Amino acid sequence: RNGARPPEPLAARLRFLAEADRLKTILRGTTIFDGSRRENSAEHSWHLALFAHLLGEHAARPADTRRALRMLVLHDLVEIDAGDAPIHGDHDPAEQEAKEQRAADRLYGLLPGDQGQALRRLWDEFEAAETDDAVFAKSIDRVQPVMANLECGGGTWISYAVDREKLDRRVGDKVRRGAPALWQALTPRIDAWFAAA
Amino acid sequence: RNGARPPEPLAARLRFLAEADRLKTILRGTTIFDGSRRENSAEHSWHLALFAHLLGEHAARPADTRRALRMLVLHDLVEIDAGDAPIHGDHDPAEQEAKEQRAADRLYGLLPGDQGQALRRLWDEFEAAETDDAVFAKSIDRVQPVMANLECGGGTWISYAVDREKLDRRVGDKVRRGAPALWQALTPRIDAWFAAA
Ligand SMILES: [Ca+2]
Repeated sequence: RNGARPPEPLAARLRFLAEADRLKTILRGTTIFDGSRRENSAEHSWHLALFAHLLGEHAARPADTRRALRMLVLHDLVEIDAGDAPIHGDHDPAEQEAKEQRAADRLYGLLPGDQGQALRRLWDEFEAAETDDAVFAKSIDRVQPVMANLECGGGTWISYAVDREKLDRRVGDKVRRGAPALWQALTPRIDAWFAAA
Repeated sequence: RNGARPPEPLAARLRFLAEADRLKTILRGTTIFDGSRRENSAEHSWHLALFAHLLGEHAARPADTRRALRMLVLHDLVEIDAGDAPIHGDHDPAEQEAKEQRAADRLYGLLPGDQGQALRRLWDEFEAAETDDAVFAKSIDRVQPVMANLECGGGTWISYAVDREKLDRRVGDKVRRGAPALWQALTPRIDAWFAAA
């Protein structure tokens, strides 16, 4: 180590954290709950972390909600390069996945080797949605925009012309898989909204 | 339980999470790193969670960085009622603390008893800044705006007319206490900025 320069791992981490700041500029399809503006992926990720912290009791299978919380802090970082692909939009899933893989290579590659690999594995696990922790985390990621739409009077259900059946297939299935009680709790409000729409 | 209604703890949690969304509307003194707009306290909290996840190796004393991360996810929720008090601003600390205590009573009181109390204890611990985890978390909360100012060309150091000595006293002391290597790593850039200002 050269006494005049910060140790290299720390410098790499600080560069990564400065780069990560750009997630605050990635706008999602959904709005914040008051409907006043679009939500960005950084504040969305914060909100999901809080969901995970509070909702562990409602996981379908015993999940390490603290690990799920950390997954959710990371899960959208690839959008810095790949952008957000709205769940009700018509992007090509294979193309989006290829973009996100390249983004993960670049971003996690900025970190010291071991640490970059550990973060990458946590993101890979989230994406694969096979472990109990990842299934729970995915259900949280899917349910938060449903709550946003309910709070703001329809949101992306209007802008993307979503019908009740499509919502169930694209969103409900995943929420029920990881946290069925959440979907059950919201179903009366969802049904009422679509019945009135 | 009444089969037609969600279990009460879940309903309470969902109300709390909807209320928490308002943290996205609380604007801080600092900007995001590109200087394009003010940062809100939700995306700030997300950024700090990522800092904690990556910087544990640099903690002054062995800290449970995962616990610190969870503290940082929660730490600004009181601003929903109490607002953000910029570190370089001239708010009355006693008045701000009283506002934050009332905010914590109200917000954590929305949750089921045990869970509300657990979150409140974690926030109290952060505020007290006595445990190793809280001292580390506080250093993260203080260092992120320093990086924002360095990245965007001065930021709140200009708008609040901060001098190098005041920065050291209000910010540097706390960063050094929890993560001295972070302050050391940033000092050359900080010194250069103030020397040129
Ligand atoms: Ca803060």
